[in-house]
Amino acid sequence: MNVSELSVESLRPFLEALFEAAGVPKEDASVVTDAFLEANLRGVDTHGVRLIPAYVRRLQQGGVNPVPEIRIISDLGGTVRLDGDHGLGQVVGCHAMRTAIERASEHGIAMVVAGNTSHIGAASYYTRMALEQRMAGFATSNNLPSLFVWGGLKRAISNPPFSVSFPSRRTPFVLDICLGTVAWNKIYMRLQNGEDIPEGWAWDPEGRPTTDPGRAAEGSIIPIGGHKGSSLTLAVDLFTGVLGGFAFADQVGALLTNDRDPENSSCLMMAIDVSRILGPEVLDRAERLIEWCKDSPLAAGFSEILMPGEPEESIRRSRLRQGIPVSKDDLRALAELGESMGVEVPF
Amino acid sequence: MNVSELSVESLRPFLEALFEAAGVPKEDASVVTDAFLEANLRGVDTHGVRLIPAYVRRLQQGGVNPVPEIRIISDLGGTVRLDGDHGLGQVVGCHAMRTAIERASEHGIAMVVAGNTSHIGAASYYTRMALEQRMAGFATSNNLPSLFVWGGLKRAISNPPFSVSFPSRRTPFVLDICLGTVAWNKIYMRLQNGEDIPEGWAWDPEGRPTTDPGRAAEGSIIPIGGHKGSSLTLAVDLFTGVLGGFAFADQVGALLTNDRDPENSSCLMMAIDVSRILGPEVLDRAERLIEWCKDSPLAAGFSEILMPGEPEESIRRSRLRQGIPVSKDDLRALAELGESMGVEVPF
Repeated sequence: MNVSELSVESLRPFLEALFEAAGVPKEDASVVTDAFLEANLRGVDTHGVRLIPAYVRRLQQGGVNPVPEIRIISDLGGTVRLDGDHGLGQVVGCHAMRTAIERASEHGIAMVVAGNTSHIGAASYYTRMALEQRMAGFATSNNLPSLFVWGGLKRAISNPPFSVSFPSRRTPFVLDICLGTVAWNKIYMRLQNGEDIPEGWAWDPEGRPTTDPGRAAEGSIIPIGGHKGSSLTLAVDLFTGVLGGFAFADQVGALLTNDRDPENSSCLMMAIDVSRILGPEVLDRAERLIEWCKDSPLAAGFSEILMPGEPEESIRRSRLRQGIPVSKDDLRALAELGESMGVEVPF
Repeated sequence: MNVSELSVESLRPFLEALFEAAGVPKEDASVVTDAFLEANLRGVDTHGVRLIPAYVRRLQQGGVNPVPEIRIISDLGGTVRLDGDHGLGQVVGCHAMRTAIERASEHGIAMVVAGNTSHIGAASYYTRMALEQRMAGFATSNNLPSLFVWGGLKRAISNPPFSVSFPSRRTPFVLDICLGTVAWNKIYMRLQNGEDIPEGWAWDPEGRPTTDPGRAAEGSIIPIGGHKGSSLTLAVDLFTGVLGGFAFADQVGALLTNDRDPENSSCLMMAIDVSRILGPEVLDRAERLIEWCKDSPLAAGFSEILMPGEPEESIRRSRLRQGIPVSKDDLRALAELGESMGVEVPF
């Protein structure tokens, strides 16, 4: 395959230097680099380093503010609204989750809505921050509308990330999904490869089920559970853009279409201090429930019952040894970017 | 059809008297009666008055405690754990949501986990309590495991209720779903009527997709989005039974199998004071998002884009006028119950 495997150690200082060269302060450059590398390490390559040239372009052209002044707009103790000042989604998202964790340690639970920001990347990056404090976490964000609302033919709702984490003694539970049946990327990949898509993934522009990825690309992904996922997705926009006082519906822009305009998405970060609510026994109880699930006869085609996050952890272990796969095209784009910005390219 | 239509006015005092005759204090009898009637009024007849004979039997035989002492076990301000003392799910659930609302008005958000309780009925009953305070609400509960966990052939997860509400100026958003593709009741009804079920609803006992409701009844409903809904459902058990220190997995009993044993389910009630977080403008902003969705070209077969809860509100308006439909069998069971308990039967 047309792919190189690069070690995290060699990539990290290079990527940090790229962001610093684009005007991002050292500490923030380290945050956003870590978020990208963790996505690749866990196999979520769609949210990995291949996006960095677009991010840097947006930083250079004004769509993203490299030096945001993130500030509290309103504060009720357990809930905080943050203005992200059009900073990088990862920087604002981490700030928001750190605030949620801090407040949850006081009140048991806390929710932070941060707006005027951009793409937060893989949402489990933030819910794992809660896990590190033995808290449970929840993370989501609104995005450009790209799905039909139930019953309609207008792209009125987004395909939002939705991550829930819960700590346990050995097997952390880290769910990281979108509320559409699949991510758009899966449709585009089938389109590129000239393959049909399975039934149940998408509607054509007239709202009819389709297996043609080209028709799907002009139509809509079907939300999980049909009207159920449609309403859950609408709830995400209510609890982020609407509640935060930020952009919602088609006021939210796309990540990649215009490098000069702010994206105006907003994210919601929640932390729940489960280890203080029940005490440390919560970790053993969670593990018991997980073990009880795992101790199940297997359906055909399965060799193990896996918790959400487990496959990603196993990919991470192997990629820490073998490196992260980056396509030749993506690698070339990163190298050219480094050269154009005067950052030494290590590959 | 073999159905009578009874007015809420005539049913209410009769049902309250039934619960009082079963030892439930006046105030609680009024709460549980109202929850049942509201379910029927909104067309959720599966959670309506037809269940009352079973409820009364459990109150009489010891499975449910008519006079629970609901008490706080732990309290961090924004999070509270309640012991439901094996009281009626509706009584404990309302107590929990009232506590959540009270605490949310202090901290912005609050979450109450209440255990040692029983079936809470329609979960939207509680999230609408939050709406009345112009707050957003969330309600769920764990139940007897009845679905296969993803990849397995053991009933390891439940088919939990999942309700989210958000207030707006005119059109409240009240989502009330189960996380399985359908409720078990829909499978049983098709079985009774000798009809096939659609593809995508259920697995047979070997985990293969089936359209035979008999095989489905021995197998599992498919969670929404497959592995996604499976993990969300597992999260419900983590955030209720596991986190609360209450029963989880197969420690939770069934509503209807044994009238002497406690059910041991637990519920989670959350309130978010959105009107204080952003101010009253949140109501107009929510309405604008809803209107924007509604202003969409329609897919074939739809005459309107409806928000979750809207169809139920329209049924409620008509049933307030025309009465609640109750089958002859259910009516006879209620009448016999009244007679056996010395409660005057108004129909």
